[in-house]
Amino acid sequence: MYGARDVRLETLPDPQLSTGDDAIVRVVAACVCGSDLWPYRGVTPVAAPRQVGHEFVGVVEQIGRDVGVVKSGDFVIAPFYICDGSCSHCRNGVSTSCVNGSWWGSPDRKGRPADGGQGEYVRVPLADGTLFPIGDTPDPAMIPSLVTLSDVMCTGHHAAVSAGVRPGSVVVVVGDGAVGLCAVLAARRLGAETIVAMSRHPARQAMALEFGATHIVADRADAGVSAVHRLTGGIGADCVLECVGTEQSMRQALGSARPGGRIGFVGLPNGGPKLPIMHLFDNNVGVQGGIAPVRGYMADLLPDVLTGTITPGRVFDLHLPLADITEAYLAMDQRRAIKALLVL
Amino acid sequence: MYGARDVRLETLPDPQLSTGDDAIVRVVAACVCGSDLWPYRGVTPVAAPRQVGHEFVGVVEQIGRDVGVVKSGDFVIAPFYICDGSCSHCRNGVSTSCVNGSWWGSPDRKGRPADGGQGEYVRVPLADGTLFPIGDTPDPAMIPSLVTLSDVMCTGHHAAVSAGVRPGSVVVVVGDGAVGLCAVLAARRLGAETIVAMSRHPARQAMALEFGATHIVADRADAGVSAVHRLTGGIGADCVLECVGTEQSMRQALGSARPGGRIGFVGLPNGGPKLPIMHLFDNNVGVQGGIAPVRGYMADLLPDVLTGTITPGRVFDLHLPLADITEAYLAMDQRRAIKALLVL
Repeated sequence: MYGARDVRLETLPDPQLSTGDDAIVRVVAACVCGSDLWPYRGVTPVAAPRQVGHEFVGVVEQIGRDVGVVKSGDFVIAPFYICDGSCSHCRNGVSTSCVNGSWWGSPDRKGRPADGGQGEYVRVPLADGTLFPIGDTPDPAMIPSLVTLSDVMCTGHHAAVSAGVRPGSVVVVVGDGAVGLCAVLAARRLGAETIVAMSRHPARQAMALEFGATHIVADRADAGVSAVHRLTGGIGADCVLECVGTEQSMRQALGSARPGGRIGFVGLPNGGPKLPIMHLFDNNVGVQGGIAPVRGYMADLLPDVLTGTITPGRVFDLHLPLADITEAYLAMDQRRAIKALLVL
Repeated sequence: MYGARDVRLETLPDPQLSTGDDAIVRVVAACVCGSDLWPYRGVTPVAAPRQVGHEFVGVVEQIGRDVGVVKSGDFVIAPFYICDGSCSHCRNGVSTSCVNGSWWGSPDRKGRPADGGQGEYVRVPLADGTLFPIGDTPDPAMIPSLVTLSDVMCTGHHAAVSAGVRPGSVVVVVGDGAVGLCAVLAARRLGAETIVAMSRHPARQAMALEFGATHIVADRADAGVSAVHRLTGGIGADCVLECVGTEQSMRQALGSARPGGRIGFVGLPNGGPKLPIMHLFDNNVGVQGGIAPVRGYMADLLPDVLTGTITPGRVFDLHLPLADITEAYLAMDQRRAIKALLVL
């Protein structure tokens, strides 16, 4: 990632084991995240060219001397962050706050570089804590859904869990991107009875319905809130899954939650959506969520992916070889694709 | 309540049944709330003299023609608000958002006045939904703890429930007023293992310890946060019960919660404590709570009060006859009393 509109496929030296706790993974599939568009669009400046990509699956080719769980040959899913899996925060299920954690494409806690996931090989620090091994390489048709466990499916699930979705819940999902669509799937999986997907994009509306949405609301702002209230008998939703992160989307979420309801938010706050505390107080509306500790959800969600009970890989409506990385960014930037899969 | 520093005991006509769904209650005990000090201190202006008081217990003397649950002679606990007990929000456990609800000392939804609780008689609108009858008049020694079910004990419990306190939880309680002390009691009752009470007032520290606090932290601001982290092995608390409502107290709460922890907040937000959404997002710290739907908690807490398992009435460190109402306000205003009970 060189800067705005400037992402290049370049040949670099293969990564080397260096910290003892690391592994080298040959990437089988990766993808472009909505957050990768921030530097691509120039919203976040790029100080120096750097490797990017934080969602990938692959096969372990080498392991460091201290690696004991992950084995060479294992097919692994990488969460979008690096974690040791053993610190107090990891044990509390909040591996995103790992005291030894770090990020793809950045130095690890020992100062050694970890590669970005949009590439052929990645050095994975803290391999035993970070990687989720699932055994042998699965059928290629399964790959897209497995890649979603790196981030978007588990993040949608985090929104649903954080909002307290349970059997019978009335749920509103704000956001029709890959995470919002996966949140619909997660809400249905947890037994929600009513799932209102807010979307004005026909293809995404169709996918939301396929994923389990019972209603679509295309209106936004006050009209969107009114529509939700009409659909819920004037009461509002038990659970609102906020999967965007703008001030407008949070306002939509706040307006949609019933008194005593809860907002599960996973949209990276962008431009500081305000949380009006008097509204929360007067209506007993709770807010829970944040950056999704996806590593801890993988074991829970994997069986439903492997049995085909959920098919979150459907959010990849564009499959490209790594060589076409430029087109992957462009298609997402122009909203021609919900999410682009890179197949290696 | 005439205005700043001007509260008077005056003789008014006895209230009359007027809406069919109402009851006349002879007050046995009432109390002064911290929020009554706002008009008393001139923080909230008083446009016209009005009856005040919203925490009381008493005996039903008359019932309207449509009252079917509450009977004449019943000893009743009044929550700090009026609710019908039957609307969707009440059925969802959020009776503070009752669609037919109103407030003591204000007109009810039919425009008829409801008296304040600091007086001899009160007309109670929506008597069947509002009042919690407990049978015959109990032993006088039980009265103080029963009065706390009108507000402070149930509100402390709401903080604990909203923060998700459960057996083994590590809890921090911010605030050593009556609600904060009751929150300590509620956390212990729900099985918390570690309860850190933040207080710099010796008598309140002693009561917190008596109520089940395992540690006292007298420091505030950054030093208070550091002390909490020292006591929790650098991790922070699972649950923080925010029982004050200032920007400083919310900052204390945010600093004390561990990643993935939750703040249960019941302090009426005063001066707009900010909720820094990036901190919540990065650390997966949740915020839940608000004005406590106490009516719904009474049945749960009453047995423990009647058996003496909890004695929240200890927060009343000043008992006065109604005639000394002026002294009740003054003692609370000057922080000579935690909370003043008015015995009729």
